[in-house]
Amino acid sequence: MEGKDGKEENMAAWLLGIENLKIQPIVLPPLGPHDVKVGIKALGICGSDVHHFKTMRCANFIVKKPMVLGHECAGVIEEVGSEVKSLKVGDRVALEAGISCRQCNLCKEGRYNLCPQMKFFGSPPTNGALANKVVHPAYLCFKLPENVSLEEGAMCEPLSVGVHACRRANVSPDTNILIIGAGPIGLITLLAARAFGAPRIVIVDVDDCRLSIAKSLGADKTVIASTNIEDIGIEVEQVQQAMGTGIDVSFDCVGLNKTMSTALNATRSGGKVCLIGLAQTQTTVPLTPAAAREVDVIGIFRYRNTWPLCIEMLRTGKIDLKPLITHRFGFSQKELEEAFETSAHGGNCIKVMFNL
Amino acid sequence: MEGKDGKEENMAAWLLGIENLKIQPIVLPPLGPHDVKVGIKALGICGSDVHHFKTMRCANFIVKKPMVLGHECAGVIEEVGSEVKSLKVGDRVALEAGISCRQCNLCKEGRYNLCPQMKFFGSPPTNGALANKVVHPAYLCFKLPENVSLEEGAMCEPLSVGVHACRRANVSPDTNILIIGAGPIGLITLLAARAFGAPRIVIVDVDDCRLSIAKSLGADKTVIASTNIEDIGIEVEQVQQAMGTGIDVSFDCVGLNKTMSTALNATRSGGKVCLIGLAQTQTTVPLTPAAAREVDVIGIFRYRNTWPLCIEMLRTGKIDLKPLITHRFGFSQKELEEAFETSAHGGNCIKVMFNL
Amino acid sequence: MEGKDGKEENMAAWLLGIENLKIQPIVLPPLGPHDVKVGIKALGICGSDVHHFKTMRCANFIVKKPMVLGHECAGVIEEVGSEVKSLKVGDRVALEAGISCRQCNLCKEGRYNLCPQMKFFGSPPTNGALANKVVHPAYLCFKLPENVSLEEGAMCEPLSVGVHACRRANVSPDTNILIIGAGPIGLITLLAARAFGAPRIVIVDVDDCRLSIAKSLGADKTVIASTNIEDIGIEVEQVQQAMGTGIDVSFDCVGLNKTMSTALNATRSGGKVCLIGLAQTQTTVPLTPAAAREVDVIGIFRYRNTWPLCIEMLRTGKIDLKPLITHRFGFSQKELEEAFETSAHGGNCIKVMFNL
Amino acid sequence: MEGKDGKEENMAAWLLGIENLKIQPIVLPPLGPHDVKVGIKALGICGSDVHHFKTMRCANFIVKKPMVLGHECAGVIEEVGSEVKSLKVGDRVALEAGISCRQCNLCKEGRYNLCPQMKFFGSPPTNGALANKVVHPAYLCFKLPENVSLEEGAMCEPLSVGVHACRRANVSPDTNILIIGAGPIGLITLLAARAFGAPRIVIVDVDDCRLSIAKSLGADKTVIASTNIEDIGIEVEQVQQAMGTGIDVSFDCVGLNKTMSTALNATRSGGKVCLIGLAQTQTTVPLTPAAAREVDVIGIFRYRNTWPLCIEMLRTGKIDLKPLITHRFGFSQKELEEAFETSAHGGNCIKVMFNL
Repeated sequence: MEGKDGKEENMAAWLLGIENLKIQPIVLPPLGPHDVKVGIKALGICGSDVHHFKTMRCANFIVKKPMVLGHECAGVIEEVGSEVKSLKVGDRVALEAGISCRQCNLCKEGRYNLCPQMKFFGSPPTNGALANKVVHPAYLCFKLPENVSLEEGAMCEPLSVGVHACRRANVSPDTNILIIGAGPIGLITLLAARAFGAPRIVIVDVDDCRLSIAKSLGADKTVIASTNIEDIGIEVEQVQQAMGTGIDVSFDCVGLNKTMSTALNATRSGGKVCLIGLAQTQTTVPLTPAAAREVDVIGIFRYRNTWPLCIEMLRTGKIDLKPLITHRFGFSQKELEEAFETSAHGGNCIKVMFNL
Repeated sequence: MEGKDGKEENMAAWLLGIENLKIQPIVLPPLGPHDVKVGIKALGICGSDVHHFKTMRCANFIVKKPMVLGHECAGVIEEVGSEVKSLKVGDRVALEAGISCRQCNLCKEGRYNLCPQMKFFGSPPTNGALANKVVHPAYLCFKLPENVSLEEGAMCEPLSVGVHACRRANVSPDTNILIIGAGPIGLITLLAARAFGAPRIVIVDVDDCRLSIAKSLGADKTVIASTNIEDIGIEVEQVQQAMGTGIDVSFDCVGLNKTMSTALNATRSGGKVCLIGLAQTQTTVPLTPAAAREVDVIGIFRYRNTWPLCIEMLRTGKIDLKPLITHRFGFSQKELEEAFETSAHGGNCIKVMFNL
Repeated sequence: MEGKDGKEENMAAWLLGIENLKIQPIVLPPLGPHDVKVGIKALGICGSDVHHFKTMRCANFIVKKPMVLGHECAGVIEEVGSEVKSLKVGDRVALEAGISCRQCNLCKEGRYNLCPQMKFFGSPPTNGALANKVVHPAYLCFKLPENVSLEEGAMCEPLSVGVHACRRANVSPDTNILIIGAGPIGLITLLAARAFGAPRIVIVDVDDCRLSIAKSLGADKTVIASTNIEDIGIEVEQVQQAMGTGIDVSFDCVGLNKTMSTALNATRSGGKVCLIGLAQTQTTVPLTPAAAREVDVIGIFRYRNTWPLCIEMLRTGKIDLKPLITHRFGFSQKELEEAFETSAHGGNCIKVMFNL
Repeated sequence: MEGKDGKEENMAAWLLGIENLKIQPIVLPPLGPHDVKVGIKALGICGSDVHHFKTMRCANFIVKKPMVLGHECAGVIEEVGSEVKSLKVGDRVALEAGISCRQCNLCKEGRYNLCPQMKFFGSPPTNGALANKVVHPAYLCFKLPENVSLEEGAMCEPLSVGVHACRRANVSPDTNILIIGAGPIGLITLLAARAFGAPRIVIVDVDDCRLSIAKSLGADKTVIASTNIEDIGIEVEQVQQAMGTGIDVSFDCVGLNKTMSTALNATRSGGKVCLIGLAQTQTTVPLTPAAAREVDVIGIFRYRNTWPLCIEMLRTGKIDLKPLITHRFGFSQKELEEAFETSAHGGNCIKVMFNL
């Protein structure tokens, strides 16, 4: 995009109010010595983006002034800061979305995803990456191998959530897995768990269509869930029967009373329940019976140190994320809201991708 | 006790119905080659014993026929099986309370406390140790050093819970600790956490008297809790302020909605909440906000491999459990129910001990 | 085999002296209530068996009287003890080779492979399983699924070593691996590491033929090793170049000064070296430079809790061990020594299997 | 120190050649926005400083041009950068000695002590802190509580080594410990291990005087070592007897063939040997027999994330380092070399401290 005075103009999709997105100029921060300027080429829409779009908030994060959404992205290096040695103009990179302080105890211990000073793309009040250009620290931009596309690069962000969950849950060939929820994160967790060696994976959802996608992506068994909370007992039996042996780790990718209750009851003594989905804030669940069987509840917040592994998994073909990209849009005013509405609609839509 | 034919008689306190305990003869199982016969000399009453006494049940365990309670015990070896080499008649021993199958995966992996075939003293339908004699596997009887009394030996059982909790929570000099509940388990966890190196320990209870005991046992700060669930916000602030720095691990030794909510909210990002007390079965708590800060919930069920460490801690004086023994009773029909009522009453009573 | 009085006779291959094996009757121990009698159908020869055959010793174990070798085996249940419920006559099972005491601290903590009372098939003075029948505890006999052959069942034993090594080294999709030595254990470790998700595996050996087998089994890169200890520097460069990125874990499946030195120098800071092969007792290696980079040295002794996982890996086809079985012999006096000589000879022989 | 033009002058002790130290002016780097200027008040001499002083090298680090030594230090904030909020002029602080890149994988994972870009005080070619002033990142300066002296602040550096070793070895009340070497690091490891809850600590040295200091600092038993490598067998017996039970973790604070051999042989199956001292580069040790008992060898390099814990341990009195400071010198040309010679001499000298 060229501005009126002939200079290339920096444009971003601004969220101005509920369901109100507009492509407008953006002033980029100055390029520091350790920064790079990236021309964004692919950006996926996440459920949290849709939440912001529909309600101006997500969990504790509230949109208080116009801002840019988007944090699943990849692009091409256009300029490098004076001290940057690891990257050069023209390099294709995937961007890790959050900038931590690197000074607090959590950062120094390597748990930087929990840094209280985190600045995360598209998480208020930090602007996101649904823009033609962004400035980002070089050390958070990871070069893509030739055989990994920019769209796949953008998918490293959601894949990171699955990878982080598998790491925290210690998934290995010893781990039989139940996944509750076959949305984008559930499906990605399925792929990640398989790559971590999980021998048996059962997946549960209310949506038959989603389950058939899960099946095609490699789930061993699928179980259709009822939405009636009364049915937890039956559901627990069904998933245990589908597994045929103890469930070592359950990933709840939904986060409702019912899904958590199923997870807590279905997991074997000494196993783990990982909470990835966080739909309900105050939850009513059989926590103590699970505790009395030493079923631990492991929280998952974003990810840390995941990009190199994600890229390696894509490079070696251990994980194929391309089937998850079901819809594509251009970066134009006209397609903008359609893209978000498509993502919000769910159904046969898994991942919406912008091509910029 | 001599029977009418001159043979020493084996007697136990049988729970015949609600609040109905009677000392009657018991037929001991035959002494196997790897077993020992122990004359019980000290036995402490646990909250679960009181539950059985008062309601004929505790959690999922239901008393369906007359049985013997009691699982915190120590005694003197009276006879050894033909293959027993580690112990001899006259040895003073503390008894680990549960016999696991040693064949299932959990046993083989060392998590035998979760063995589904566990036979545990005084947990229906297995008879307990409130008897003048018991037969027990030799490998579950641990010799007491000279400077450790039989009462202290009996206290290894509740101490084991605190030790197991500290191990599972990875307590070390790096761990600042909140303990909710200053009953026997809360106080013992306090002592154990201190022995594991915890630098700062804050303890919360509704009972001022209990808190002053906690203080005398070494708690750095105490906070008096309200019973009003509305006050969680204030309570979280109070305990955080009392700590003066991040709370790394919270031990909930109560297990109510309110206590768990305080624990989940008060613990720092990346910390752990250990559930030891299990008062409420269906719990309503802010689980997902905690998960979103990667505060993990760790379940605690009894203990494993704790006796040698408990005895070593007593031997070296790292832990002094004697102040916790507040009441003593003889093993007679007359004192039996009084002992249980005293234990049930709480207040200034921490641990009731039978001397047999 | 029918004895002269019409009763089926129990026969075993007795090691009577160096290179002196004879099939003779064996008196089986009585069938205890928790035991099973197994008709052995497949048994593989291990390097340690060959050591015993050739030298009457292996490491600290010395053959002092005639004994039976063999510990990699599978068979069919012929009789079950009175208390056995998990198995029935006719079941096809793989046998875990060692019987631990289940009473010591190491057993109770789940590290039973280190039990000082271990009775291990074919490790002096315990008789092995190269016999038409053995009596073994039921809980150490693991039922084979229909699609897993008895030969594959026997291969669970060497596979267990690789699995145990991968578990101890925490192999995952995050772990790039160097394997030194492409003998049976090196090749099996390669297969196990792949199943644990290792993205890049480089393997080194002095034998070109072994390396081409490694390649066919899935090694990413192979490096031909010199036998000259002076060449360590070059070798380290070669393996690092072959890896193309940091070596996270090195498995030394040989255990010579040269191989350990290569492993210690080649592994990245903060990585691990696993010692599986133990050729040299007193080793001269650059241990401190490795320690100064926090490269830890992890010892591997046999395995624990591996059979269920091995069988699951075979059932799901994650690992195919059949290509490793290169030679087969019958259980006859004539073929006996030929089988051992073939195994001793190496070369294109990987695993020698007896079919009984 | 005031320069001739009335400006305060920055002075440092420059190492100009072997045993040649001279106090000369130093040009400090500019104060960045996240830096502080610290007036150094206490600085301890480390064995590595003495190595540099005596030989112009230490391990792989070689002094190629004049440089400043010293890395155990504390001081008072004299100026703060524009962005520094956590510290103010006049604050008393202990300085963490190394500045890592915070961008590489090791830094991001929290193992920043292994960062290949580390700039470490007094490790060639980075200047040390034996100067009246240094400029350092604010996040590496830790405020001292009122009851912790500046000398104790300087001692946080060597204490960090012991703390890091205890963390890596997982020292707890379950860990019986052998320490080989009663020099400064051995003694500090003793104090750290005690604070981590180690119940029994046996310490070995060739020097009786050192052992009596160890005893006074709380060692349970001491063993006088022979310097004859032939005596390893006897020594192993002696330390095992002194312990009276299994040795779970051995810290070798020397790093010679003999000390490592003792450590490897004496440690119980499944235990750990921590290499802290690194005297010998090529080591000849019984590594495989230890590996065959799964005795792991854990390398220790400096420390990470230790200052807050060290300061907390000093604040609460869990550790008292003051008895270790045996000699004090002023920061003058006259006392400079005497201080280094005193430190080099050993004997009854444990820690030499400069007071600036």
